[in-house]
Amino acid sequence: MESFSSEADYLEVLSKRAELPEGFQVSTGRLTFVPQERPTQEPYRMNLALLLADEPTDCFAGVFTRNAFPGAPVLMARERMRERLLRGILVNNKISNVCTATGVEDAEQLLRKLSPLVGVPSLELLSASTGIIGWSLPVPEMVSALPALVSGLHRGPADDFARAIMTTDSFPKARSVRVGEGTILAIAKGAGMIEPNMATMLVFIMTDVRVSRDDAQAALTDVAGRTFNRISVDSDQSTSDMAVLLSSGRKGSVSSEAFSSALYDVCRQLSEDIIRNGEGTGHVMRVRVSGMLDETVATAAAKAIVNSPLVKTAIYGNDPNVGRIVSSLGDYAGNSGIAVDRKRLSIRLGEWEVFSNGVFHLDRTKEVDLSSYLQDVAMNPRVKGYPQHDRCVTIEVDFGLGQATSEVLGSDLSHEYVQENADYRT
Amino acid sequence: MESFSSEADYLEVLSKRAELPEGFQVSTGRLTFVPQERPTQEPYRMNLALLLADEPTDCFAGVFTRNAFPGAPVLMARERMRERLLRGILVNNKISNVCTATGVEDAEQLLRKLSPLVGVPSLELLSASTGIIGWSLPVPEMVSALPALVSGLHRGPADDFARAIMTTDSFPKARSVRVGEGTILAIAKGAGMIEPNMATMLVFIMTDVRVSRDDAQAALTDVAGRTFNRISVDSDQSTSDMAVLLSSGRKGSVSSEAFSSALYDVCRQLSEDIIRNGEGTGHVMRVRVSGMLDETVATAAAKAIVNSPLVKTAIYGNDPNVGRIVSSLGDYAGNSGIAVDRKRLSIRLGEWEVFSNGVFHLDRTKEVDLSSYLQDVAMNPRVKGYPQHDRCVTIEVDFGLGQATSEVLGSDLSHEYVQENADYRT
Repeated sequence: MESFSSEADYLEVLSKRAELPEGFQVSTGRLTFVPQERPTQEPYRMNLALLLADEPTDCFAGVFTRNAFPGAPVLMARERMRERLLRGILVNNKISNVCTATGVEDAEQLLRKLSPLVGVPSLELLSASTGIIGWSLPVPEMVSALPALVSGLHRGPADDFARAIMTTDSFPKARSVRVGEGTILAIAKGAGMIEPNMATMLVFIMTDVRVSRDDAQAALTDVAGRTFNRISVDSDQSTSDMAVLLSSGRKGSVSSEAFSSALYDVCRQLSEDIIRNGEGTGHVMRVRVSGMLDETVATAAAKAIVNSPLVKTAIYGNDPNVGRIVSSLGDYAGNSGIAVDRKRLSIRLGEWEVFSNGVFHLDRTKEVDLSSYLQDVAMNPRVKGYPQHDRCVTIEVDFGLGQATSEVLGSDLSHEYVQENADYRT
Repeated sequence: MESFSSEADYLEVLSKRAELPEGFQVSTGRLTFVPQERPTQEPYRMNLALLLADEPTDCFAGVFTRNAFPGAPVLMARERMRERLLRGILVNNKISNVCTATGVEDAEQLLRKLSPLVGVPSLELLSASTGIIGWSLPVPEMVSALPALVSGLHRGPADDFARAIMTTDSFPKARSVRVGEGTILAIAKGAGMIEPNMATMLVFIMTDVRVSRDDAQAALTDVAGRTFNRISVDSDQSTSDMAVLLSSGRKGSVSSEAFSSALYDVCRQLSEDIIRNGEGTGHVMRVRVSGMLDETVATAAAKAIVNSPLVKTAIYGNDPNVGRIVSSLGDYAGNSGIAVDRKRLSIRLGEWEVFSNGVFHLDRTKEVDLSSYLQDVAMNPRVKGYPQHDRCVTIEVDFGLGQATSEVLGSDLSHEYVQENADYRT
């Protein structure tokens, strides 16, 4: 078993090992600019990142934010998902290109300038952006940086790409799994608490195995629903969330089941990395809800717990305030018209049963044990195993009503979260 | 115009002026106890408060939490709302009496012990509790404190009652309005950020004017929907929220319209006091949504803004991050399937239009002005006028789709909130 000095070290190593699948290249670049919208003494810095398949592919898929005011990159990518071929993605951080007067025009202009440099029609290229909402892209400065970006295209490890798309992420996030003769590589910038200023998640998935385009889209939609849509930090869904998948098909076909299963594995690992990312995160909450009539309701109940500010602050303070867990569940059920029965409800925090048969089971000893459990979790920054989750508090809820289950990951609510978000834009 | 040294001073003075309507008495008491559930070096302190009408009244009303796991006092009060007569309410802080094995039994026992001391059948008495969820009431200690509580019953100002039901409230909250020949007095302990450890709101309303019981209930239900249900601090609805109204009828009848209008005035003032309460609250947000197709949706959209952690932290940091306002609205609309049109949306922050015709209108000057506005609001602890709101940031959203409007008040998300909630129970 390998040993790592810290969680950050562990994920750094993972991202370095995550090699590009066959048939892909990436590159990264950097530029400075002065935003039109804000006075500043120092210019802002922006990263660019480029992902390019060697050949155009007709096997690609995407899922996008449900936010009703999506950014220009989301609007454009949704359109391009209807095209026959796709080949690459240009990503920038710092400005998310949302709801400006010239947002789509700006991004299209960038892709048109990139097009001759890579010999790819601009309709086969996507734009992806993350950062401040409402500001305009510095198009001239970005265009000037494109030639150097293109000349840096390379194969091999993708950790530079994973690093370039970061904003306040504390480490790059890339995961790779084997499937058939090839691999699936997924790279993310994270959302919410661990990326609190954005609440934007961008995920780029490359594979060299071949499935049908319909199967790829179906697998991505299904897997995103069971992985990325089951992490929540601050319940804010961004204008810019997207996950895009491209296949080079170089390593032959796999069954849709094998593909879907491998895609689930890699996306689940990546979504756990996202929630674990932030230095400000004192505890990760893993909430398992079972005994519900359907999975949608089970997921919503689990999210009610991880999104409750009162639960989140208690967990942050190592206070096993299980009353707030029951209150958040009751709030959700009562306001959603979900019929629940207190007598059938049971709740475990860590190893300890704290609620069953309609009442709390708390006493002096258990309160002390639970406090110690929360403290131990928070004080445990070591990652020895592979894979292993530290700083993870388990909350298990059984409604005793049916067979459906769901698991959601969330973060506690810390001073660091408030600090990072109180004036992000300076 | 009167002048006050601070907001706290202002509300203290208000609560002292709030006299009991004719036909009511109140009293307060105090006790210490060691909770069964938690080891502690120091005993805990609990306040009792008693409210008693001189005669049983058949004119009363109540609204209660929609939480699916309500506390024993809520379960009991819902039952008693069906009785013919009501006469008084016994309130305690510190422990909310929710989901314990003997919760209803404990509260019934207390009321049975109180019954002979006040000469009132226990079915005409309500119990109300606020505090830690999951712990048991210290019944013997509470029973011992009842005789002194009853002997302290008095008329006149109710500020001692308003103070006794506080938990971490920074000042007592009581408001009185005139209607017909009499008055309506409403007293609250607050919810959410300003009462973050509880997220419980208790409201007690007394009046000496007479309306029919049906009109009283209809007015309370309607008014609560337009006042208490339009403030939100942390989106957590407690297991114990209740608002109860009793009329002594001593000062004759008023029309249901006059009653409803006066009840709205007093409840609106009180709900604003609740949201303004906390020392940890840097800014109050007043969000006005207009141009929606119906009021329910307008209210939900306004709540999406005041409950967004990213909006709340930005406002706390005096950062006019209006992108997060658009994102929170888009998140709500997109996930609720509400059809909106970006081109018709307009948003104002303070005096400044920041979004219209589908795009942001931001520039260097406006960003500076907006930052100054937020800073000025936060730095303004003076209350000179009567009434006046300080520390209040105005956000106006017009969807341009219909005639419905709604206004919601919320709090920012501060370090003090995290601090108060991280280990409330010690």
